[in-house]
Amino acid sequence: MPVFSHQFQALRGTAGDAGLELARTIEAVHRRTDGTFVVAPQTPDIRLLAEGTSLSVVAQSIDAVEPDRGNGQVAIRAVAAAGADGVVINHPESPDTLADVEAFVAGCASFDLESIVCVDSVEVGRAVLTLDPDCLLFEAPSDVATGRAMTRQHPERVEAFVSMVESESPRTRVLLGGGISSAADVGDAFDLGADAAGAASAFVDAADPEAWLSSIAAALVAE
Amino acid sequence: MPVFSHQFQALRGTAGDAGLELARTIEAVHRRTDGTFVVAPQTPDIRLLAEGTSLSVVAQSIDAVEPDRGNGQVAIRAVAAAGADGVVINHPESPDTLADVEAFVAGCASFDLESIVCVDSVEVGRAVLTLDPDCLLFEAPSDVATGRAMTRQHPERVEAFVSMVESESPRTRVLLGGGISSAADVGDAFDLGADAAGAASAFVDAADPEAWLSSIAAALVAE
Amino acid sequence: MPVFSHQFQALRGTAGDAGLELARTIEAVHRRTDGTFVVAPQTPDIRLLAEGTSLSVVAQSIDAVEPDRGNGQVAIRAVAAAGADGVVINHPESPDTLADVEAFVAGCASFDLESIVCVDSVEVGRAVLTLDPDCLLFEAPSDVATGRAMTRQHPERVEAFVSMVESESPRTRVLLGGGISSAADVGDAFDLGADAAGAASAFVDAADPEAWLSSIAAALVAE
Amino acid sequence: MPVFSHQFQALRGTAGDAGLELARTIEAVHRRTDGTFVVAPQTPDIRLLAEGTSLSVVAQSIDAVEPDRGNGQVAIRAVAAAGADGVVINHPESPDTLADVEAFVAGCASFDLESIVCVDSVEVGRAVLTLDPDCLLFEAPSDVATGRAMTRQHPERVEAFVSMVESESPRTRVLLGGGISSAADVGDAFDLGADAAGAASAFVDAADPEAWLSSIAAALVAE
Repeated sequence: MPVFSHQFQALRGTAGDAGLELARTIEAVHRRTDGTFVVAPQTPDIRLLAEGTSLSVVAQSIDAVEPDRGNGQVAIRAVAAAGADGVVINHPESPDTLADVEAFVAGCASFDLESIVCVDSVEVGRAVLTLDPDCLLFEAPSDVATGRAMTRQHPERVEAFVSMVESESPRTRVLLGGGISSAADVGDAFDLGADAAGAASAFVDAADPEAWLSSIAAALVAE
Repeated sequence: MPVFSHQFQALRGTAGDAGLELARTIEAVHRRTDGTFVVAPQTPDIRLLAEGTSLSVVAQSIDAVEPDRGNGQVAIRAVAAAGADGVVINHPESPDTLADVEAFVAGCASFDLESIVCVDSVEVGRAVLTLDPDCLLFEAPSDVATGRAMTRQHPERVEAFVSMVESESPRTRVLLGGGISSAADVGDAFDLGADAAGAASAFVDAADPEAWLSSIAAALVAE
Repeated sequence: MPVFSHQFQALRGTAGDAGLELARTIEAVHRRTDGTFVVAPQTPDIRLLAEGTSLSVVAQSIDAVEPDRGNGQVAIRAVAAAGADGVVINHPESPDTLADVEAFVAGCASFDLESIVCVDSVEVGRAVLTLDPDCLLFEAPSDVATGRAMTRQHPERVEAFVSMVESESPRTRVLLGGGISSAADVGDAFDLGADAAGAASAFVDAADPEAWLSSIAAALVAE
Repeated sequence: MPVFSHQFQALRGTAGDAGLELARTIEAVHRRTDGTFVVAPQTPDIRLLAEGTSLSVVAQSIDAVEPDRGNGQVAIRAVAAAGADGVVINHPESPDTLADVEAFVAGCASFDLESIVCVDSVEVGRAVLTLDPDCLLFEAPSDVATGRAMTRQHPERVEAFVSMVESESPRTRVLLGGGISSAADVGDAFDLGADAAGAASAFVDAADPEAWLSSIAAALVAE
């Protein structure tokens, strides 16, 4: 089942009620397709979207928390309690130490959350697969927010990545990010073997988000 | 009006529904006193407590967010949208750079949130006062979670701090933390000139949190 | 006595013997002028330049070190032992927490090192002056490495900054950075009241570094 | 050939001339044994010890440096130019992101430096081995500076770790740290299959460092 992921990041117009409205637009399109849509809202909005929509909600990041400390840190326990279905780990804008990547993947397993680890190369992807994550999000930082999808710029990189994952850990899904901005990009991602694709700024920047989303949904249905 | 602040940090038993129940216990005691109680829940629970109680809710921390970026960062816009009344800045467990302290105090003013800046010395307190914060939280890291209140160990430090703030910025309130764990400590804090006192682990660790809280409330009423 | 500062950062061609050669070029020009030249090499090269030239050498950054710990951290004790004459604090590319800025300024005083604190606004500058630093380095991150000097783009900001420092702490010197790339810029900096000016990429990028440096030296002598 | 490593960290009495004297004591003992001694001085002292002794010198840490930026960052290029023979990566007191671990191991290979990656579990060790490091330093943070060696407390953990490395990457050497404080601990480490052992505070804290070191040397010779 094809999956499409929306990362709200800290983009304007994605916090609080505005974010809930965005998520409901996504949900409305979601109901008309077989595709699965996932949203990654800002941390204070996890519960709002988990309770207010039927979408899968993933936390943008979590923190390592020492017992009995941790002011300002976001514990995995807290995002699970807020209704998250998964956690994004090692995002390039909030990178995690190696020890934290290990601890967070294990923590997701024990809290029954989907672990989604960001990597930017075949080498780093292979290292993370030894930790048995549920999903790898593959994107090169240089492609983010450019409108130049890796699928078009470097299809051979995507194929090499997908092939490595299939060989090392067939159960792990591959999510493609980085410059995905159109239904054609989404179609390319699935054609190259990805299990999912995602975008951040493209949806928020679209002149008509619902129309943009419907075109993405059509691409998902076509898979 | 005396104020007492509860920092939930990432302590066990403070996330999600358990945190809401804690907050409702605080609220119940709050209604029987003239004192003001403030809670600082984990970030995913700000909205839960802001909507589910009449308490003042402050964010444990926020992040600097670059325009159009910021995965995993908590923007001041998002905590304001979630219903926060204030923000803790520069907590020793999530310290902020000097530039961020300046930006966050200014941001709080523009979003009409209370700015509460943590400092650990008269010198750092004086530096922050030039930025015109609403409140300084004065505590020495070495007193945190020890059960040894600064008010008892070093009352002269508290007096020197209060005196400096009164001289430099009378409008700024002084909140005392660091080892406050009993009604006597709270009484001492107000006697030494503080406008507010706070605790983290003491409430959660108390054998009977409601009884502990009632004793604190009595100390607030006595002021 | 006018001062000109060279920040080597981690620019190519500034490490090890290449950096020593650069420093000797600076020293040769320095001997022909009344101006003072300062260099900020990478940390492994502090001793090399302190022992191999007569220039003032400042550390690009230091770290807070807990007693009996600190692998990978650079202690103020170590840069002093290596022959540094000063320390750059709170550089935008290695920003320091508020508590560290206070500790580092005090540490510089106790080790008899010049404390040079980077700030990007009048407000942050005023806050730092309460800590009594020897020098403030004023630059806006947006002007760095642009070739557009703040002195030309925003002379009024420079004047406001200099005026604030003269009023709050006349003993503290003002060093201007951010886009300084020509002798004219240096002249402007001094005309606007700065005590010193500095550059990073301009020297390294110059087609003829020695000629470029001589023109800067002439600007210093003219002061 | 057995190896023993000294991490100076930022311990008192290890900077500048005092550090050089320590290193010369190590060198004097080194010459009387077949064992190899390695030192990890603070960054400003890499060149001092590389030029002033015949010991192998490793950098305590390096930083990721973006092209044309990097004030305060320590580039691999700079530690190589200073004479380092290797780099400690991902030390628990200066942990590295996953992407940096990958980049630093690759950087060491291209600069012909020994890559020594710290890990605290079999799982993290296995992940790093996919990146082909020269050496893994295995220690649990909870054993550091305790005087309780992992070799005595948890010999089964050491055996499991050594066995995993032999199976996954026979060329990679295993260095044991964490609480090693006597010749008996060093002997145990080699008996359990480690290729090297190391200590930080034990040497500096010893009443008679040279006698302590000679006992370690005897343990190395016995291997």
